[in-house]
Amino acid sequence: MAKATKKKDLPIILVTNDDGITAPGIINLVEAVKHLGKVVVVAPDKPQSGMGHAITIGQPLRLIPFDGFDGIEAYQCTGTPVDCVKLAVDKVLHRKPDLCVSGINHGANHSINVIYSGTMSAAMEAGIESIPSIGFSLLDYSIEADFSAARSYARKIVDKVLKSKIDKHCILNVNIPAVPEEHIKGIKICRQAYAKYEEDFVERNDPNGKKYFWLTGEFVNFDKGRDTDVWALKNNYVSVVPVQFDLTNYVLKTKLEKTWKF
Amino acid sequence: MAKATKKKDLPIILVTNDDGITAPGIINLVEAVKHLGKVVVVAPDKPQSGMGHAITIGQPLRLIPFDGFDGIEAYQCTGTPVDCVKLAVDKVLHRKPDLCVSGINHGANHSINVIYSGTMSAAMEAGIESIPSIGFSLLDYSIEADFSAARSYARKIVDKVLKSKIDKHCILNVNIPAVPEEHIKGIKICRQAYAKYEEDFVERNDPNGKKYFWLTGEFVNFDKGRDTDVWALKNNYVSVVPVQFDLTNYVLKTKLEKTWKF
Repeated sequence: MAKATKKKDLPIILVTNDDGITAPGIINLVEAVKHLGKVVVVAPDKPQSGMGHAITIGQPLRLIPFDGFDGIEAYQCTGTPVDCVKLAVDKVLHRKPDLCVSGINHGANHSINVIYSGTMSAAMEAGIESIPSIGFSLLDYSIEADFSAARSYARKIVDKVLKSKIDKHCILNVNIPAVPEEHIKGIKICRQAYAKYEEDFVERNDPNGKKYFWLTGEFVNFDKGRDTDVWALKNNYVSVVPVQFDLTNYVLKTKLEKTWKF
Repeated sequence: MAKATKKKDLPIILVTNDDGITAPGIINLVEAVKHLGKVVVVAPDKPQSGMGHAITIGQPLRLIPFDGFDGIEAYQCTGTPVDCVKLAVDKVLHRKPDLCVSGINHGANHSINVIYSGTMSAAMEAGIESIPSIGFSLLDYSIEADFSAARSYARKIVDKVLKSKIDKHCILNVNIPAVPEEHIKGIKICRQAYAKYEEDFVERNDPNGKKYFWLTGEFVNFDKGRDTDVWALKNNYVSVVPVQFDLTNYVLKTKLEKTWKF
């Protein structure tokens, strides 16, 4: 009974991602946090990169038990990363977890990527639902990426958040440089760099002679600040950007209030 | 020649939406703005509500000419609302338009809806690409909604933005109450209300006896402020929330910088 009570007192950690439930990144994230709480995994059954904050409205969702995390309760979900968080809270946990972690993403989610990223949108959704959350991303797209440093920092940061009196709407965007752990200089709290993608769709004809376009683009950083996530990562720091879901542009609001008359 | 030059000088207005290119809302938006510039439409070929800031990475996109706007250049796109904006700039206009307008959405996009909304994500994408943009939404989900007041206010606000020296990253979230125009009290510049959805998935069995879930939920407004979009709309004002894409939570950033030591 004592043991049961103790287990019950462990924080419940919901784990999700956008690369899909079989991605090495989520396996590494579960490894990183499984000793810090009671872990439950609800993650997409297929890659959902770039899904942003999409939710599934027009069709039903499924949850299928998944046996790939060494005895840890896990489900693959047919929906988006945001659907995973919503379903996990309402239909798997039947309560809010103490923390939601998302990732570890295969590839950067610094700067403007926070808007497109399914990994970060899952974390954002948790934040909206008053669940502290952290999205983790490693700056290496490879399926064979070395997650050892990312795993180590994920554990440190999750431990810190669980031990802190953290705001229930705390959402952190954590990126880890793709270098060996001994080259990482530490953790920097940053702001989101002002950067974007310059689009350049590839234009081709399909085998039937019909034109199609495929999204590609070059990442351009306009922001020279040394307090940004892009700067921190370039200088081998782990970047931590606190994220919010109030999108009001208060500067422009004040300006319009003063100048707009109809 | 003089006429051609004059036409060339007209502002280029890109029109998109998330309800799909055949939705009454976009037909009304084109009607509202077609005398204010050279209008080009690039909109999804199917409903894309709730797609948030999703982009299509893993498959190609198509653009198909669409003849439904009385001689106005228009294309239906197989992708998301954000894809529409990206493709329009790179492959249809071959330049940035002077303004991007999105909608008129069938249903509210006030408060937290800004995060889930394809309508607002299209506007957000334009803002990221340094194109001033406005998303319009009418608080009526019906396919037979009366768009006359919304059309009238859309024209007023677009005219205002085109005549103002507006910031190139200006993104406005405009919602119009579902009441006759004579009951609308005016336009209010607002902040995004703190509200969210309380999820309650419907749980059923399909004809094969397998369980599925369908997203539903109740909108809950926690925000009693009289400066919010929800308040303005309840009091028959058109709400205008300026929106930004820097998601940094600067308050939490300062707090973590002071208190977090590793």
